[in-house]
Amino acid sequence: MIQSRLDRTAEKMARMGLDRLIVSAPSSVFYYTGLWVHPGERMLALVIGSDASAVLYANRLFALAGTDKVPLVEFDDTDDCVLTLSQGLKGGVLGIDKTWPSQFTLRLQEARPDLKMRVGSPAVDDTRLIKDEAELRAMRESSLKNDRAITALIPQLRRGMTEKEAAALYMEESAAQGSEGCSFDPLICFGANCAEPHHASDATKAKDGDMVIIDVGLVWQDYCSDMTRTVCFGTPTDEMRRVYDLVRAAAKAGREAVRPGVPLRDVDRAARKVIEDGGYGKYFIHRLGHGIGLECHEFPDVSSASAAVERPGMVHSVEPGVDLPGRFGVRVEDLVAVTEDGCEVLNHAPRELYSL
Amino acid sequence: MIQSRLDRTAEKMARMGLDRLIVSAPSSVFYYTGLWVHPGERMLALVIGSDASAVLYANRLFALAGTDKVPLVEFDDTDDCVLTLSQGLKGGVLGIDKTWPSQFTLRLQEARPDLKMRVGSPAVDDTRLIKDEAELRAMRESSLKNDRAITALIPQLRRGMTEKEAAALYMEESAAQGSEGCSFDPLICFGANCAEPHHASDATKAKDGDMVIIDVGLVWQDYCSDMTRTVCFGTPTDEMRRVYDLVRAAAKAGREAVRPGVPLRDVDRAARKVIEDGGYGKYFIHRLGHGIGLECHEFPDVSSASAAVERPGMVHSVEPGVDLPGRFGVRVEDLVAVTEDGCEVLNHAPRELYSL
Repeated sequence: MIQSRLDRTAEKMARMGLDRLIVSAPSSVFYYTGLWVHPGERMLALVIGSDASAVLYANRLFALAGTDKVPLVEFDDTDDCVLTLSQGLKGGVLGIDKTWPSQFTLRLQEARPDLKMRVGSPAVDDTRLIKDEAELRAMRESSLKNDRAITALIPQLRRGMTEKEAAALYMEESAAQGSEGCSFDPLICFGANCAEPHHASDATKAKDGDMVIIDVGLVWQDYCSDMTRTVCFGTPTDEMRRVYDLVRAAAKAGREAVRPGVPLRDVDRAARKVIEDGGYGKYFIHRLGHGIGLECHEFPDVSSASAAVERPGMVHSVEPGVDLPGRFGVRVEDLVAVTEDGCEVLNHAPRELYSL
Repeated sequence: MIQSRLDRTAEKMARMGLDRLIVSAPSSVFYYTGLWVHPGERMLALVIGSDASAVLYANRLFALAGTDKVPLVEFDDTDDCVLTLSQGLKGGVLGIDKTWPSQFTLRLQEARPDLKMRVGSPAVDDTRLIKDEAELRAMRESSLKNDRAITALIPQLRRGMTEKEAAALYMEESAAQGSEGCSFDPLICFGANCAEPHHASDATKAKDGDMVIIDVGLVWQDYCSDMTRTVCFGTPTDEMRRVYDLVRAAAKAGREAVRPGVPLRDVDRAARKVIEDGGYGKYFIHRLGHGIGLECHEFPDVSSASAAVERPGMVHSVEPGVDLPGRFGVRVEDLVAVTEDGCEVLNHAPRELYSL
């Protein structure tokens, strides 16, 4: 399985004119080696060759010695790690992981002016993009557990509870499902906080009339889930209901637009059009979705700027929203896996506007 | 306060020959603006000029519009963010944050072949290195809360408990101290796991005769604490006690070596010598310590490779350890703040080898 991933990546490297590729994101290193390494500020580099070989450069502190998963070159904190890496690199065109800290790239450029360096991540992204059957099984189960956790959470939400307390409750429900953790800090927003797309759960207390956005995900067998539901404390106003119905219809239009061959920007458009036609276009200020897998946010963006096209095996979110600053916000998010003739929706939790 | 930080940084930039500096680490952006922004995969760049000016380039999604803390240039997901940034940069020598994802550096190099780019972080590191009085107050309080949390935790450890359960208990005690969270995942290791320096707390259960390493920290008013204590389930063997006494003596020698003007490599040496003289030198495989502040691991390393020298206002860990693979490990860690004539030890939790 791992060799086939390396083979597919080497093919893409050849098409991009890359002789070698440095992979450094922990999730990508795991994808190609089965080893989770969290390097912190230290250097980590998996060098993939055009012959689909792979060698891992890692600090001895990561305690990988003796692994049979990948050939290993180790170094200490007192070694010049970039020099160690440089000595193992032949000339030519070197792809660099988009997330590799710039200190390593800049120092490698100094040490090796003969190397041509380019962002090499498309070769990785384009491989990781297409999930195999084992990955899809884990992602299905991850989303099923997320469905169960959110369904258990919603009836426990109470007026007077803080966003942080609600987030802690989700974590308990996620743990009760046997998850390996959350795929991101649970984002539970009350009232006007719902209209801040990057609000973090804080000490705000729920009160009657608040809309509540619940954006949560967990990790199961290394794979992430991610979904959003919006509910209301008390009876929603007419406008809340109108906006909710619009967002729900946009989410449905987005999901229904997903099938092989469709550009992702058209999927974004299909959902966005519903909200624009309803008169709230200027309040839908974010992309429609994002790829997901070993990481919660992966290539590709589902946005008007995306050049990607739907292909079987891709998994991404569809999450339109309307944010009315200072008032309320609504978001409905589900994950979809692209099939041969459409998509499989991985979330099954109800999409009603519950009154609590 | 913030202007004085920018002034000090601009002085260091001048000495390094930098005309401008891109700062991207969230903790550094907070340090210079008072704004916490977590960009995920999106671009974030604070451009500091040689005149100590600062402009923040940020995605509109981060919801910073209207801030009076720093001049702001916003962009959308559909904009070419590197182009937006490039248009705001004059020519010359540009310092790059060591952690800036390489995709931005490589694309900026393509867009602006006229710019000379270098790792610019020393200008930031060397400023953040010296904590001011307000920072020291927060760090003292953060460590005091960590002392209290670990002191409350230790008597609750039980045989049969898993490392994860013990870690969850620490999180409760940390929250009970009103902390803003943990400064890293609590690292509680039982038995042979103690000898793996990068072991993550797992389902291993505590049993009689196990050494237990408790490496924990919390966040208070944005500042991190970090300490380690080693205890034992039951009566330690003679060797366990001998190794423990050696590590404790090495920690003391390290702390006592800290005073202005002393090279950090000499502090590392002072502690390492004690363990080497005791015959366990080859089992002390990591650096003696690391700087700490807004991040748990900051510049500088306290290691044999460090070129830094102790200066008043620096705060770093002193954490010698002995790891005996497959058997047990011992580590004792305290934070020290360098004073005019020595150091203030920020941790006060007892350093006895408790038997539980």
